[in-house]
Amino acid sequence: MGWAVYNEPRTKNRPVARQPVHLTAIYPGSFDPATNGHLDVIERGSKLAGRLIVAVLRNESKQPLFSTAERMEMLAEVVRPFPNVEVASFDGLLVDFASQCQASLILRGIRAISDYEGELQMALMNRRLRPEIETVFLMAGEQYSFVSSRLVKEIFRLGGDVSGLVPPAVACRLRERMASV
Amino acid sequence: MGWAVYNEPRTKNRPVARQPVHLTAIYPGSFDPATNGHLDVIERGSKLAGRLIVAVLRNESKQPLFSTAERMEMLAEVVRPFPNVEVASFDGLLVDFASQCQASLILRGIRAISDYEGELQMALMNRRLRPEIETVFLMAGEQYSFVSSRLVKEIFRLGGDVSGLVPPAVACRLRERMASV
Amino acid sequence: MGWAVYNEPRTKNRPVARQPVHLTAIYPGSFDPATNGHLDVIERGSKLAGRLIVAVLRNESKQPLFSTAERMEMLAEVVRPFPNVEVASFDGLLVDFASQCQASLILRGIRAISDYEGELQMALMNRRLRPEIETVFLMAGEQYSFVSSRLVKEIFRLGGDVSGLVPPAVACRLRERMASV
Amino acid sequence: MGWAVYNEPRTKNRPVARQPVHLTAIYPGSFDPATNGHLDVIERGSKLAGRLIVAVLRNESKQPLFSTAERMEMLAEVVRPFPNVEVASFDGLLVDFASQCQASLILRGIRAISDYEGELQMALMNRRLRPEIETVFLMAGEQYSFVSSRLVKEIFRLGGDVSGLVPPAVACRLRERMASV
Amino acid sequence: MGWAVYNEPRTKNRPVARQPVHLTAIYPGSFDPATNGHLDVIERGSKLAGRLIVAVLRNESKQPLFSTAERMEMLAEVVRPFPNVEVASFDGLLVDFASQCQASLILRGIRAISDYEGELQMALMNRRLRPEIETVFLMAGEQYSFVSSRLVKEIFRLGGDVSGLVPPAVACRLRERMASV
Amino acid sequence: MGWAVYNEPRTKNRPVARQPVHLTAIYPGSFDPATNGHLDVIERGSKLAGRLIVAVLRNESKQPLFSTAERMEMLAEVVRPFPNVEVASFDGLLVDFASQCQASLILRGIRAISDYEGELQMALMNRRLRPEIETVFLMAGEQYSFVSSRLVKEIFRLGGDVSGLVPPAVACRLRERMASV
Repeated sequence: MGWAVYNEPRTKNRPVARQPVHLTAIYPGSFDPATNGHLDVIERGSKLAGRLIVAVLRNESKQPLFSTAERMEMLAEVVRPFPNVEVASFDGLLVDFASQCQASLILRGIRAISDYEGELQMALMNRRLRPEIETVFLMAGEQYSFVSSRLVKEIFRLGGDVSGLVPPAVACRLRERMASV
Repeated sequence: MGWAVYNEPRTKNRPVARQPVHLTAIYPGSFDPATNGHLDVIERGSKLAGRLIVAVLRNESKQPLFSTAERMEMLAEVVRPFPNVEVASFDGLLVDFASQCQASLILRGIRAISDYEGELQMALMNRRLRPEIETVFLMAGEQYSFVSSRLVKEIFRLGGDVSGLVPPAVACRLRERMASV
Repeated sequence: MGWAVYNEPRTKNRPVARQPVHLTAIYPGSFDPATNGHLDVIERGSKLAGRLIVAVLRNESKQPLFSTAERMEMLAEVVRPFPNVEVASFDGLLVDFASQCQASLILRGIRAISDYEGELQMALMNRRLRPEIETVFLMAGEQYSFVSSRLVKEIFRLGGDVSGLVPPAVACRLRERMASV
Repeated sequence: MGWAVYNEPRTKNRPVARQPVHLTAIYPGSFDPATNGHLDVIERGSKLAGRLIVAVLRNESKQPLFSTAERMEMLAEVVRPFPNVEVASFDGLLVDFASQCQASLILRGIRAISDYEGELQMALMNRRLRPEIETVFLMAGEQYSFVSSRLVKEIFRLGGDVSGLVPPAVACRLRERMASV
Repeated sequence: MGWAVYNEPRTKNRPVARQPVHLTAIYPGSFDPATNGHLDVIERGSKLAGRLIVAVLRNESKQPLFSTAERMEMLAEVVRPFPNVEVASFDGLLVDFASQCQASLILRGIRAISDYEGELQMALMNRRLRPEIETVFLMAGEQYSFVSSRLVKEIFRLGGDVSGLVPPAVACRLRERMASV
Repeated sequence: MGWAVYNEPRTKNRPVARQPVHLTAIYPGSFDPATNGHLDVIERGSKLAGRLIVAVLRNESKQPLFSTAERMEMLAEVVRPFPNVEVASFDGLLVDFASQCQASLILRGIRAISDYEGELQMALMNRRLRPEIETVFLMAGEQYSFVSSRLVKEIFRLGGDVSGLVPPAVACRLRERMASV
């Protein structure tokens, strides 16, 4: 295999720049609860941006299983190994929140089995609302292609075993929740 | 709208890091020829990575319209406004080339109308070959959702007007090519 | 480029007919509210049929943002420039309404990002119920590929700017609605 | 079920027009050979437009099974029952041919199982080349959802029975072709 | 056409086995109500497994049109011609129910127009929960590609004719239900 | 969790049958070469049918990497652990070959990332040609969702490591092939 960087005609004019990039990225979601698929995206995303904000949507109208505070606590546990990742919550427009955080990236995970078209629709709409914020898609591992918060909750509710699908901190909370009911 | 960064339980232990990131990204393709959709991805990608290498696949077996050298010359023209973007060519495995360039990102554009599944298949395979290299998907503008190199060449060959679909440098070369035939 | 109409073997038998067509088409939907994507389909459809009826579904059970009367008033404003377009409402089966209007076409817009399969399912079912009524699909402009009534309402509710996504008459009503809340 | 045509606020200003429409439509394809799915679209399309031109693409480079003349002869047989349908051939850009025929519509069939995205890509490109020509999609019957010219030829080549998949005129030619080989 | 069973290098070592298979399969669903598409899958599935259990999900939370008992009665009528098919109901995890029935197969119908990705997601999750149970997909006839319980109920509610879409036993119950309202 | 087999109204009339099933299934493909995804389907399929014939398509026109004989030899190695699986080759129509083998099932693997629509089209066509033969879809493990013969060959040709993607017998042959070139 051979290859050749093609810079003869250009480098006469100017040297190629190596810009250090200080990007802040937002990874938004309901995280009700966070799954191992989410964790996989967080880990990958933490290498992509200088600062990654995992942003929990405060969608009270949808009757989540866990309160916003609980979801944030579980995520705080989950992101502890990643020094440049923090946890926040938001309501209102995602792009407005991103702008307040001076984030220039929205991070989304896509799966082999996923609402691909819904993701694109949302991303195009967000671009129209604030063109300066870019949506970036990462691909979760194929072993998470079938894991969603909705399915995890359904299996948990029906008495199935969800360890291996969610981080230990989440599995623990799910068991507590079950015991208290 | 309100929001709250959730850092109380964590910042007691350690301050949140702001890491400057020096990433090199590869944007691979045939670019036979580059379209305005490619240019859109290059412009967006140049803000994401510290250094972006547009990498032309030397697929001689596929009988391209333009030689590798011609494709690189057109791209060099196209990327001139972006100081951290350079042009290269490669054959062999993309992930091997990325590794030689010390690139940690592969950049791919996805379109509303696109070979989504083919993109995912390639990205999963590349991850298996070299897990340390991440594939990142950006979304080209919806106005480019129907523009592909293949379609541009077909329209050009049938006498249609492709200005507006390709950068001026490419339109110029296409006209030269037509005149010489 | 050359081409040849192939009529030698047939025109001996009979001249080719040029039939004036007096078709009535129905463009059904919830239109809660009408978007610029809907307007685009109406404009294209008005050239296709002699008479186009924009038909508002009276789906009271779904708790629309605007009443049927309001939705019809906004549409009446929107279709004013098109002399062969009128506005109606219906409940019951769409094909029954179409039959009462002596419409032989159902008009649907499809988008690059869209519920394509749901559209086909509905069209096949409608054909089974009344085979004499044809469903015809037009393609909205790619700049509307991400615009849906649902998304417009969500952005409006979260304080985002929806001008450019909806006709002025609709934007105006949305602002009035917001002010009154 | 009830319904109400909403024309009070408008009909004060002007009566609703009933425009007779004299549209010419093009139904392009390779038709190598025509299938019953094509025939279904032709029959439906003949009711939609005043004049329908079935346009055979002269794609000699693709080594068709039947010559352009043969494909046109079979189609002439097939369209005989429809007085406003004629058969032509073209090369070059479809929209240029449509323009020469003063056609304002391009007719395409879509199937439940079909290259939906390829169809949209082509339609958006054609719109960009000539915005005044509209692409209209009809849905072939679900019994034809798996019938394509390519598959018909493959089955025929392997000795399978294709009657019921193609019009009698085509089945006859296929048998002749087999006998002569 | 020719073909050759390739067993020379192996049959020296051992004869090829012909194992009689005594498989039990589960065909789960809401069946609210059963459609002709479901009946088609039952008929095909009854030839695949030694014993087929049509398993009605007791999803009381979703406010079904028919009670679990009613749905089971209708199905019992429908499966009468198939001696190896029986009807059951379940709640809890499907794979747990399958295990209790000593079923090793889950049977699912897929349609040309269908929630393909949702089916795969569910099947992968079920495999993770109990790897010893296999999900098998059959394809309903293309004439049922647009028939779903949801659509049947909607058409019935709006006064449309659903005979031909559902088995006679179901059509009869639907009429009774309508008369009683 | 509770459940109840619903057999009261029926078992009065007749006992539920438990039919032993002696099905022969065909698993057709090019297998140029067999991958671990194919092997996964073979293993699952061997439990489904009493006899499973892995059938290699003799597509000489497509210039395969391995000859039909080589592909059969590799498969014979691969299927050795499964006593009810044998290897054959065929040309002509698949359903004719299935009929000659007295097979009533065609087995196909589907992947999360796959040509789903092409599979359905082929299956519907095969059903039309021989309605008595059923196509059954199994789902390969998600870890094989990106593995295809085409991709394996491309990576091998470019010098990448394909062990883990193909059975050892195939990896060995690929290395021999490389050494001999």
